[in-house]
Parts: sequence; structure tokens; C-alpha cells
Amino acid sequence: MSKALDSSRLEAFSDGVIAVIITIMVLELKVPGKAVGNVTALRAVTPVLLVYLLSFVQVGIYWVNHHYMIGYVERVSHGILWANLAFLFCLSLFPFATNWVAERGITAFSLALYATASVLPALTWHVLSVVITRFLGITSATSALKKYTSTLLYVGAIPAAYLSPYLSLGMILTVAVLWLVPPRRIAQATRTAGTPSGERDYAAS
Amino acid sequence: MSKALDSSRLEAFSDGVIAVIITIMVLELKVPGKAVGNVTALRAVTPVLLVYLLSFVQVGIYWVNHHYMIGYVERVSHGILWANLAFLFCLSLFPFATNWVAERGITAFSLALYATASVLPALTWHVLSVVITRFLGITSATSALKKYTSTLLYVGAIPAAYLSPYLSLGMILTVAVLWLVPPRRIAQATRTAGTPSGERDYAAS
Amino acid sequence: MSKALDSSRLEAFSDGVIAVIITIMVLELKVPGKAVGNVTALRAVTPVLLVYLLSFVQVGIYWVNHHYMIGYVERVSHGILWANLAFLFCLSLFPFATNWVAERGITAFSLALYATASVLPALTWHVLSVVITRFLGITSATSALKKYTSTLLYVGAIPAAYLSPYLSLGMILTVAVLWLVPPRRIAQATRTAGTPSGERDYAAS
Amino acid sequence: MSKALDSSRLEAFSDGVIAVIITIMVLELKVPGKAVGNVTALRAVTPVLLVYLLSFVQVGIYWVNHHYMIGYVERVSHGILWANLAFLFCLSLFPFATNWVAERGITAFSLALYATASVLPALTWHVLSVVITRFLGITSATSALKKYTSTLLYVGAIPAAYLSPYLSLGMILTVAVLWLVPPRRIAQATRTAGTPSGERDYAAS
Repeated sequence: MSKALDSSRLEAFSDGVIAVIITIMVLELKVPGKAVGNVTALRAVTPVLLVYLLSFVQVGIYWVNHHYMIGYVERVSHGILWANLAFLFCLSLFPFATNWVAERGITAFSLALYATASVLPALTWHVLSVVITRFLGITSATSALKKYTSTLLYVGAIPAAYLSPYLSLGMILTVAVLWLVPPRRIAQATRTAGTPSGERDYAAS
Repeated sequence: MSKALDSSRLEAFSDGVIAVIITIMVLELKVPGKAVGNVTALRAVTPVLLVYLLSFVQVGIYWVNHHYMIGYVERVSHGILWANLAFLFCLSLFPFATNWVAERGITAFSLALYATASVLPALTWHVLSVVITRFLGITSATSALKKYTSTLLYVGAIPAAYLSPYLSLGMILTVAVLWLVPPRRIAQATRTAGTPSGERDYAAS
Repeated sequence: MSKALDSSRLEAFSDGVIAVIITIMVLELKVPGKAVGNVTALRAVTPVLLVYLLSFVQVGIYWVNHHYMIGYVERVSHGILWANLAFLFCLSLFPFATNWVAERGITAFSLALYATASVLPALTWHVLSVVITRFLGITSATSALKKYTSTLLYVGAIPAAYLSPYLSLGMILTVAVLWLVPPRRIAQATRTAGTPSGERDYAAS
Repeated sequence: MSKALDSSRLEAFSDGVIAVIITIMVLELKVPGKAVGNVTALRAVTPVLLVYLLSFVQVGIYWVNHHYMIGYVERVSHGILWANLAFLFCLSLFPFATNWVAERGITAFSLALYATASVLPALTWHVLSVVITRFLGITSATSALKKYTSTLLYVGAIPAAYLSPYLSLGMILTVAVLWLVPPRRIAQATRTAGTPSGERDYAAS
């Protein structure tokens, strides 16, 4: 098999982009000037820190699932490369949305924007997932329930922000908790070669 | 074969540089202060977002094609390393040009500069391509038509900006669309060992 | 063994994140404006440079030890992925703490904060270490003395900052020196396959 | 051989750090506000662009030589890891020195500082080189003339800046040109296994 078709460089590039995305958000933790008292300065940074943590967890979830999903892909198609780039683009908007909430506070508009920034990578992730499962000729084993629940929660978090920004925040957090469990989709897929018992191993550990 | 001569580290370093380039552009999506209204603030960011998207697509195209081109290279020469570095340097000017358009608006001068920043990686990409095909002793299979059309469009986009910045933008967009299709040059090259039928696979998928 | 379970991507992603963390701190070395005299400007930057150096050494120590620890892990579990992400999150707060000391000077509060930022990755590192040794079914060979001494020094450096920020700084430096020696824990572990004599080689060199 | 001892992760981490260093310098190419005329704005950026280019070439030279040197190292020692980190730290000061010259102009002090920033990675590079050749038990084949000439030029560029900053700049440029040629040291070393004729191949291409 030609090197140009294997997935190692897709992984390496995605790792690089996700590593930069997940880390540059910390640049927004700006230190207030000397005129500001210590406790006041720390208190001013705290909400930024919390939003950064939430975004770190969200991007982390994507990385873990990307790791699992691409791990079963030996060869890549042109469609996979571009679906992956579309996903990475949407993911790269996280630092901006994080910064927006941090800078402008937990308001209805801020959370609606943050929820939108959470919907975009979710949608392109599903596209990437479909492109990959079609390319491999397998059927996804992620429960449709989980998939639709999380999409509904993300999309619902946009208008929900206008009822209460904290309700919106709670819905986004719920999706995060939901996805902390790894997808077993491809592990249980029909055409996967290899050691399916081994696959269940990591889920159990 | 000595490890120093294989192409894996060239790929890893290029992936790292391209990952940083494609991601740091998002740092320019600056959140306006609290004094600015929400809708006004979002509207102020929108043109930056669109230019960022265009630059992301352009850099993404280069990454995809870099992936294909280097994928066929097993060993690297000193010339390849430096042609690649020259290409990466020109590519690294994208965040600056993107920022310029974002900051100073879609004017004749801005687009002429952006078009110039688009020409530079294109030229060094062609140099890299020539260095690689010579080193491998193969002939390029990229249609000369596509190559010259895209170069002409990029170069033409510089003076075209003074007729209309949107014409210039349209020409750059046209090149992007043109290159979204992967080059099959090396796949059809004469001396490539391996599975040429497999090579056509990814182009079809 | 499935590619999704091997540790290479965990390493690649961690390398990416640590590389960004260790390098973006240099962005805080800001050049004073032309109005400031050369010597004054350089003197203003010097404390930042020294804190940057200390943080670079600390992050470097983690990278070296990460390299050793993950080097013995062939497969990863879901728990390892998330323990690693928690560790990387805590590590990503280093640029912020570094910046705080640089910006606001070597005061009691600054050093207490910096010591806290040093404790967090240490704690998550120990969690990661426990998760890995349990997953591999081995017992850690890091001397308990070294582990508890360093944790005590880090935690103690927080209140110590209120006695003297330089005492606090000295305690953090002591931990750094302590950990410059690589851990031999897994090398001497019971279930490790391979060449244990080779393992001692690198410790001796 | 244990995975913990091989050099692949040293390469990956170094690539990541060098990729970030070489790319974040472009963030200093700041776009002037709309009040500044187009030509004036571009002219203001030009010296920064030139210093960035020089620094890019210098860092690029180190990357290429790092690629060659580590390419012959199969296993790493603790000393190599730390010599490499010391080298990367010194290299990470390039963006600061570049920024200094860009911000404060081509003055005696600026160039003396830039020359100092050029000396530091050169010195740690030589240390890394000695650590590696000793670890491998080989003798370096880099001509002593080249090594001492470049060190002398770099060190001499510091006081030379006070005669003329352009003389200093010229001396740094001379070293760059000198090192554009790859070192053949390890290729001609005594204990290297493999294909020494192949090694000469890349030098000739």
C-alpha cells in the first residue's frame, strides 16, 4: 500500500492542529496589571479559567474519539481528508467562542454563540463519521439515541441561552459527560479485521 | 536505508508548521470589548472569519497536496529539504496577509497583497514539485493546463484587485476550487513502483 | 493489536501539546517600546526570562519523564487517555503562572500561585502514573521517598511564599533538581518484557 | 530495544518545538491600523519581514542539521535528551531577539543582542553534537575549520555590532551561508553501520 494512502499523516496533522487549538486558549488567561489587587486579579481570571476548562474537555473528547475512529482506518480517501479538515476548521473556532464568553461574561448572547460553536464541530464530526464508515463499508455502532440526544442538546442550547445562560451551559456540560464514554461503533462493526475481543478490552478498562 | 534520508521527519515537521500556521490565524478573531453591542461585535468579526475560512481552505489544499506528493517520496535530498522550507516560509505569510485584509478591509491594496501572498507559496510549491520529480526521475502528471491556469489566475489577481477587489477575490477562489481536486501526477508517473490501480482508488472515492 | 489501542498517537498528541506549552511562554518576553533605553529594556525583560527558564526546565522534566513512562506502555486504556489529558490541562497553566510572576514580580502571592501551578501537574502526574502502573499490572519503582519529598516541597512552597517568596522559589528549584534524574520505576518493574540490562544503560550514560 | 530508548519521540518533540518557534515569529508581523496609509504600513512591516526571513533561515538550518544528526542516532541517553532541551531553549529565544530588532530597529545594541541570541543555540548545538558523538562512540567529521569559523563569526558579531550593525548582520549571514551545506560528519564516522555510499548520495543530489 502506498504511503500516500495511509492514515498516519492524517493523524499527525490532526494531532498538531488539535494540540495548538487546545493550548492557545490558555493565552487568553491574561494577567491583570500591577494596579489591580492580587485577589481581584485572580477573581477576574477565574471565569476565563472555567470556560477554558470546559473547552479543553470538549476538545479533549473530540481528540479521544478521533483517536478511536481514525485508529480503525488504515487508508484514507480524498473525502476523508476534506471532511477531517472541515471538522478541524469548526474545532478551531473554539478558542474564539471561549474567548467571547470569557471577555463578555455569561450572558444569553455569549452562551448562544458558545453553543453554536459547539454545534459546528459536532455536525462536521458526524459528517466525518459517515464518510469514514461508508469508505470502510461498515455500519456505525454508536447508538442513534446518543447521537441524536447530543445533537438535540447542542442545538437546543442555542435558544435555551435566552431562557437562562446557565441552562444552556448545563446542556453543553451534559453532552460532554455523555461523550466521555468512548464510542464502540467501529469496534463492533461488521467488516473490521483483527481482534474484536481486544477491542472490548479498552472499553472495559 | 539510513533514517536520516527517509521522508518521515520532513512530513512531521511540515505537519507541525502547517498545523501552527492554519491554527494561529484564529487568534486574529479578536473579541470586541463589552462597550460594543453583541450584534455589532459579531458583525465586526464576520469579515475576519470569512477571510480566515478562505485562508484555511488554501492552506488545507496545500496540506492535502503535500500529503499526496511527499507520500510518494521515500528518500529526501538536501534540495528537497530546502525547497520545502522555502515553501513553508511563504505559506507562513498567510496569517499576515489574512490579518491585513481582516484589519484593513476588502480594498484594492489589501487584495493585491493577499493575492501576492497567494502567489508566493504557489511558486515555491512548483519549485518543490520540480525538485521532487527530478529527484525521483519521474515526469509530473499534473496537467500543464491546470498548473498554468492557476498561476495565471493568482498572478492576475494582483492587478485585478485595482479593477475590483471582489474580482481579485473571485480569481483566488477559482484557484481554490480548481485545486480541491487532488493531483494525480505522481500516481501516473512512469517509474513509480507499487499498486497504480490502488492509486486511482482514492481519486475515485 | 489494533492501531486504536497503541500508544503512538498519545505520544504524538502529548508531544504537540507540550511543545506548544513550552514554546508559547516565550511570547511573554515582550520588547519594550523605543522610548525605553536599551539597558533598562533588557533589565525589564530579565526576570521574565529567568521565570521562563525555570518553567521551561519544569515542563522539560515532565516531557523527559513522560517519554520514559509512556515508552513502556504499548497499549493505552480509556483511563490513560483521560489521565493524560488531565495532566496536560494542568501543565497548560504553566504559561499563565509564569506570566503572572513575570508581570507582577516575585511577591508572596505570585510565588504561592506559581507553587500551586507546580503542584497541579505533579498531582495529575502521580494519578497518570498510578493509572499506567495498574493498567500494566506492575509496581512503581520510583522511590516513595522521592515522590513524597517532592510533593511535600511543592505543597509546602505555597505557604512558604508568605515567609519569603525566595524560600518558595528555592523549594520549587529543589524539586526540579530532584527530578532531573530519570525515574527507573518501570525499568525495574516485574512484568516488563525485553532487555532490562539495556534499560539500566541509559540511566548510566 | 525498548521504545523508551529510541529516538523517534525526541525527533517528534523537537519537530514540534522548532515548528512552533519558526512559525510564531510571524505573529510579530503586525498590521498597522487603518489610519496609516497602505504604502507606509507595508514599509513599516518590511524590516520585520526581513529579520523574520533571516531568523527563519537560521532556525531552518538547525532543523535540517538536527534532522541529519539525530537521523543517525537510534537510541537516546538521558544526556542527549537534556542537551537537546538546552538547545531547544536557546533556540526559543530567537523569536524574542527577532522581535527586538524588528521593534527597535537595526542599531548596535539590537544587533549585539541578536548576535548573542545566535551564539547561544550554536554553543548548545555543539554540546549536543559532542554528547551524541561520544554516546555513539564516533568522531565528528565536520571540519574543525567550519566549526571554529562559524563560532568565531557569531561571537565576533557581538562587538562588531558597535562598529556597524550591518557588519554584524553580514557576519551572521555569512555563518548562515556556511551552514546551508549539510554536515557530513556522522556519515563518514567510523562505527556507522549501513550504507555509507548511500550517505554520500544525498550530499551529491
